[in-house]
Amino acid sequence: MGYENFNIIDGGSIITPKGFSAGGVHCGLKKTERHDIGAIVCEVAATAAAVYTTSVFQAAPLKVTRESLVDGKLKAVVVNSGNANACTGQQGEADAYAMRAAMAKQLGLAEQDVAVASTGVIGELLKMDCVNAGIASLPLRLSSEACGAEDFTQAILTTDLVKKEACVSVLVDGKEVIIAGAAKGSGMIHPNMATMLAFMTTDVNIDQDALQQLMRQATDLTFNMITVDGDTSTNDMLITMASGLAGNEKLNSSHPDWSAFSEAFTYVCQKLAMAIARDGEGATRLVEVIVHGAVTDNSARAIAKTIVGSSLVKTAIFGADANWGRIIAAVGRAGEPVNPEQVDIQLGDITVLKGSRPVVFDEEEALVYLKGDTVRIFVDLHGGDGKATAWGCDLTYDYVRINAAYRT
Amino acid sequence: MGYENFNIIDGGSIITPKGFSAGGVHCGLKKTERHDIGAIVCEVAATAAAVYTTSVFQAAPLKVTRESLVDGKLKAVVVNSGNANACTGQQGEADAYAMRAAMAKQLGLAEQDVAVASTGVIGELLKMDCVNAGIASLPLRLSSEACGAEDFTQAILTTDLVKKEACVSVLVDGKEVIIAGAAKGSGMIHPNMATMLAFMTTDVNIDQDALQQLMRQATDLTFNMITVDGDTSTNDMLITMASGLAGNEKLNSSHPDWSAFSEAFTYVCQKLAMAIARDGEGATRLVEVIVHGAVTDNSARAIAKTIVGSSLVKTAIFGADANWGRIIAAVGRAGEPVNPEQVDIQLGDITVLKGSRPVVFDEEEALVYLKGDTVRIFVDLHGGDGKATAWGCDLTYDYVRINAAYRT
Repeated sequence: MGYENFNIIDGGSIITPKGFSAGGVHCGLKKTERHDIGAIVCEVAATAAAVYTTSVFQAAPLKVTRESLVDGKLKAVVVNSGNANACTGQQGEADAYAMRAAMAKQLGLAEQDVAVASTGVIGELLKMDCVNAGIASLPLRLSSEACGAEDFTQAILTTDLVKKEACVSVLVDGKEVIIAGAAKGSGMIHPNMATMLAFMTTDVNIDQDALQQLMRQATDLTFNMITVDGDTSTNDMLITMASGLAGNEKLNSSHPDWSAFSEAFTYVCQKLAMAIARDGEGATRLVEVIVHGAVTDNSARAIAKTIVGSSLVKTAIFGADANWGRIIAAVGRAGEPVNPEQVDIQLGDITVLKGSRPVVFDEEEALVYLKGDTVRIFVDLHGGDGKATAWGCDLTYDYVRINAAYRT
Repeated sequence: MGYENFNIIDGGSIITPKGFSAGGVHCGLKKTERHDIGAIVCEVAATAAAVYTTSVFQAAPLKVTRESLVDGKLKAVVVNSGNANACTGQQGEADAYAMRAAMAKQLGLAEQDVAVASTGVIGELLKMDCVNAGIASLPLRLSSEACGAEDFTQAILTTDLVKKEACVSVLVDGKEVIIAGAAKGSGMIHPNMATMLAFMTTDVNIDQDALQQLMRQATDLTFNMITVDGDTSTNDMLITMASGLAGNEKLNSSHPDWSAFSEAFTYVCQKLAMAIARDGEGATRLVEVIVHGAVTDNSARAIAKTIVGSSLVKTAIFGADANWGRIIAAVGRAGEPVNPEQVDIQLGDITVLKGSRPVVFDEEEALVYLKGDTVRIFVDLHGGDGKATAWGCDLTYDYVRINAAYRT
């Protein structure tokens, strides 16, 4: 796949854009020795924006971060894993404010320059002695070298098996601009804006409104198109900090390089979203569902998400079973207009349904394809120009194992 | 629990109402020796009605049954399992018509007196030689004794582990009226009207419009409130046949005994629906979710179904984990108006959340409760008078095992 407008930076991370350092430590919120608190710090006041979960139950840290973002500026974000600080009432809010205040004090910043995020178990109070000890040790661990990003990226994981990162460069006014991101998310993933957390850094100089609008658009096409289990979390949040140190003229949607930047930004979101889907709890395969020919893009999105979210489709893919009947059943219950006589379905390059009629295919070839690392389901409804892509994963014994004993 | 208006008939079945016989045989559609084709026959022209899946892909037998029901009368219904005759095109329609014609011929009936239903794999053509052989042997196996109902009830099962039956009696005009039902359904269960099939018989004398309306109402409160895996099938159908042989004055909604009959009818639907949920693929527990205090009944229904359908709630219950955070997360993403500060949650009699705040509870007591056969989740939103109950089951290793290798 060629990306004409931007370059992928292998090994790049959230500290690659100019002006950022990061770090992470173990403070005791997780039972294991893994890092569980981390921070990203910008040496200048970064232009910043966020998108949040649509759940009516929004965790305490989201409230605090909204307040910090009123002026569209941030210098730091502090994140803990192991405890979501959600459904924790007034004490939870007080704890989120205290977490922000402690981080601000350690870094010599105003409280409103700091955002907070949490992920983990819902309904338990944060162990503030652990949080405070972690925050006290963080400043010494901050680094603008790769190890800083590595420590941060580990600190935000819960049941995740792998780190999720992406980094690209794009030219704006002839200057090299870097866009990077780190994310976590493994279960309760059905973002609408969804216990997914993602943090993006960039050194672009950008108008805050333009950044906010771009984040909404990119989120709709990427993070909001993944599902692991259909459950939207109380804590989902994407925060972007733009240091402005790349030296370009201030970017907005009328800038000639806007489309290149927008494409690069969306690519980073998509890479992080796909990494979350691939690392879904218990997953052995990434599933990509591409719907064409719907009446509108929104209709295509609804159908793609219904297919990728179907437990029966997900278990069939775990079993490497070319059970297209479950795919068409998902299309049929999506609540969208579909001509039932005109549906084509392909698994990779293998056509299994044409004009809603079964096509004889090589079951062995299908089995080999379905046992691969990525399964692509292509559905053409021949009913319009609406298109969408959604990502998810298979449903496995390990999903059940992980979730039958998460809290205990 | 007392039912003042009707009596439960232990051991009653679809042949208990006056005028009905039933039967089932093995014809070769299933690989095992289990019965796979069956029929219910009424000795008079029964007043009949049906409700169907809302999927845009409706299987061929649904089309044929709709035609048979144009006059609101049926004398027989023939049902096969092992093959859904869905997404089978013109040949599938021709096969469904042929199945109806063969049954009519064997019974000496007009074709439009016969309804057809199918359940099983989607997208494969029916083996008509098996179907025809089965239908040819059915008349000799029809019985108005318990064995007939037993054979029929087995013939409609696919991955079901147990038969689902219910039978009650209610007085109408001082006459004893019997209402009975048999159902199948284990996976792809998220009826909106859902591969759920249900067949009800009664000897009541009833107006056809009143029967149709009652079925819609009862379905909304019962079959449409269960979910096993969120997948709505292409074949869901509930058919009721009323022989009229109980001898009551014709029943409609202005009859003084309407509410007693309506309650009894809905009870049978509910028992069948709960039995389907309890026998969900791989299930070890029935989950009942009761929502009170929503803004409307419809809002309560949406929230109850979101909770009972949540993979994270279902795996937590499999793990006997009192993880109310997942319950509240489901409430929060249901898309319904909820005051996030006023939610109470009980697991059985154990209060775990009060005013959206965690309540300290005895984890051992909760563990014992959650390991029981039925888990009741009670949610009070304190936001209005809307109420609903939904039923489902836990999500287990066996669900994955069954569905990773269904077709092969």
